[in-house]
Amino acid sequence: MRQIASITQIPGIKAANYTNAEAGTGCTVIICPEGATGAVDVRGGAPATRETDLLRPEETVQILNAVVLSGGSAYGLAASCGVAEELERHGIGLDVGVGVVPIVSGACVFDLACGAPDVRPTAENGAEATRKALANEGEPLERGCVGAGTGCTVGKLGGPELTMKSGLGEDVECAGELVCGAVSAVNACGDVVDPETGKPIAAMRTPDGKGLGNTVEALLAMQAKMPLSRTNTTISCVVTNAKLTKAQATKVAQMSADAYAHAIRPTHSTNDGDTIFVMATGKVDAPVDIVGALATRALERAIADGAKSATSMFGLPAASDLK
Amino acid sequence: MRQIASITQIPGIKAANYTNAEAGTGCTVIICPEGATGAVDVRGGAPATRETDLLRPEETVQILNAVVLSGGSAYGLAASCGVAEELERHGIGLDVGVGVVPIVSGACVFDLACGAPDVRPTAENGAEATRKALANEGEPLERGCVGAGTGCTVGKLGGPELTMKSGLGEDVECAGELVCGAVSAVNACGDVVDPETGKPIAAMRTPDGKGLGNTVEALLAMQAKMPLSRTNTTISCVVTNAKLTKAQATKVAQMSADAYAHAIRPTHSTNDGDTIFVMATGKVDAPVDIVGALATRALERAIADGAKSATSMFGLPAASDLK
Repeated sequence: MRQIASITQIPGIKAANYTNAEAGTGCTVIICPEGATGAVDVRGGAPATRETDLLRPEETVQILNAVVLSGGSAYGLAASCGVAEELERHGIGLDVGVGVVPIVSGACVFDLACGAPDVRPTAENGAEATRKALANEGEPLERGCVGAGTGCTVGKLGGPELTMKSGLGEDVECAGELVCGAVSAVNACGDVVDPETGKPIAAMRTPDGKGLGNTVEALLAMQAKMPLSRTNTTISCVVTNAKLTKAQATKVAQMSADAYAHAIRPTHSTNDGDTIFVMATGKVDAPVDIVGALATRALERAIADGAKSATSMFGLPAASDLK
Repeated sequence: MRQIASITQIPGIKAANYTNAEAGTGCTVIICPEGATGAVDVRGGAPATRETDLLRPEETVQILNAVVLSGGSAYGLAASCGVAEELERHGIGLDVGVGVVPIVSGACVFDLACGAPDVRPTAENGAEATRKALANEGEPLERGCVGAGTGCTVGKLGGPELTMKSGLGEDVECAGELVCGAVSAVNACGDVVDPETGKPIAAMRTPDGKGLGNTVEALLAMQAKMPLSRTNTTISCVVTNAKLTKAQATKVAQMSADAYAHAIRPTHSTNDGDTIFVMATGKVDAPVDIVGALATRALERAIADGAKSATSMFGLPAASDLK
């Protein structure tokens, strides 16, 4: 089985981050210049997204040029505008006769409470990440507190004192010729757990701040509404070389949502705007269920990686600090 | 914390099974004579359902009188017709001036490959379960190879030789005054695992038939489409005393789908018509996220119980046989 270290090594895929470590925000751009088959699954209660309606199987457009994962809450959708403009400069997009219209879908995490709340990814930041991605010839994507993961945190139910730093995670899995990779900006209210064993990796800390607590138990004992200020969202992009229709890619996106359940507890809450995009480059025939199972594995491991690869920032410890 | 052994002890809820052990099929009826707030989440690729459209938050009808979980594949929807007719005889349903129309939602499992394929739950079987349920004054619901669980099997990817018997599971959880119960007919293609630790309870067996294998690994190694003859489906009903709007109940149903990911691997495949109903009796104020977390816990434990409480039938061993 071949080794693929990053989604940037999947033929047809380019990716890079823009990171503003000082302000605690950034964005991650995943580009398919030739146009992937796209799909999305929005399962969280508080999403911030753009260009998700055209991904529905019954709608006309059949390509997706880029997925933008961004910090900055709904303001961060501006980064996608800059990605579209930069792709236009490179002649990448849907040919509409008088030019091209790049198809750019995006989703945001709420990272305003981490770092500077008034600094969000801009169109120029999106354009910068796009230029970096297009120039990337297979260099692995950076992971940790970078890109859309820069301001990500988890285990937020107990307030900022017990929150932990998380970040951007990635994983690539192969089964024969089939490749499924995933990138995830892990910004859940809940705890990140090992998807195989359920053991916590990064979680709401115990009251002394030194151990890993349990958000589900805390929530059930709380008898109160989750504060909106602790808004969350884990946003991800699955990239595969599978040949899928839009309808099949949609089913794969839906199946991949199980990765959230495997690696985050609880997930899909009313304050989690959990969203998963799929980009399929159409090179390898594979049954939908196998693509779904492999994508789920890649995504659950990417989520775990987002917690494991983070480092402490803004006074918030990361999983690597509590070892 | 009070002890509630079964959903039949939740005020306003009645439930019972019809079981045809010889033919390997049956149905489970959960009734709220006063009308619960209803919702549904259909996340599987091959559902067989009725009266799910009216459960959408924007549609008019605000009550749900019964949920019918049935064997018999799509033929088993007939049981729901008998439930409706029996409820009419008791004057239970939506008052439409000239009489009542009982609101009965239903979903089916594919159990035709277990026992007699040409015997399916009929309208009369549904009516019989309804009479039994209405006469039930808190007797716990039977579990195991009964009702909709009579013909349920799991771990089916390796064919009948490696399949295991599963059944109908139940669990009730409390958090203060809030109660969430769940009933599940566990008929997955995948393996049932402990929702806390991921360890298998009932699964595709190892080639010698004596141990528990791993369906995800087998699927990823298979490189072929899942045969349609191994059609599956886990169908469930969450019952809670929470006060929820239809929209809130829908979110709870969606959150509860994470229970499938916690307890079944893989789940939500193209051959799994996974469906979850919610019935909320509206007695206790509780935040949606807490109801969702408690419902998820009840449902994942009900799924595990469906595997644990089954006994061997038709030559298929159950979890209790492999200990």
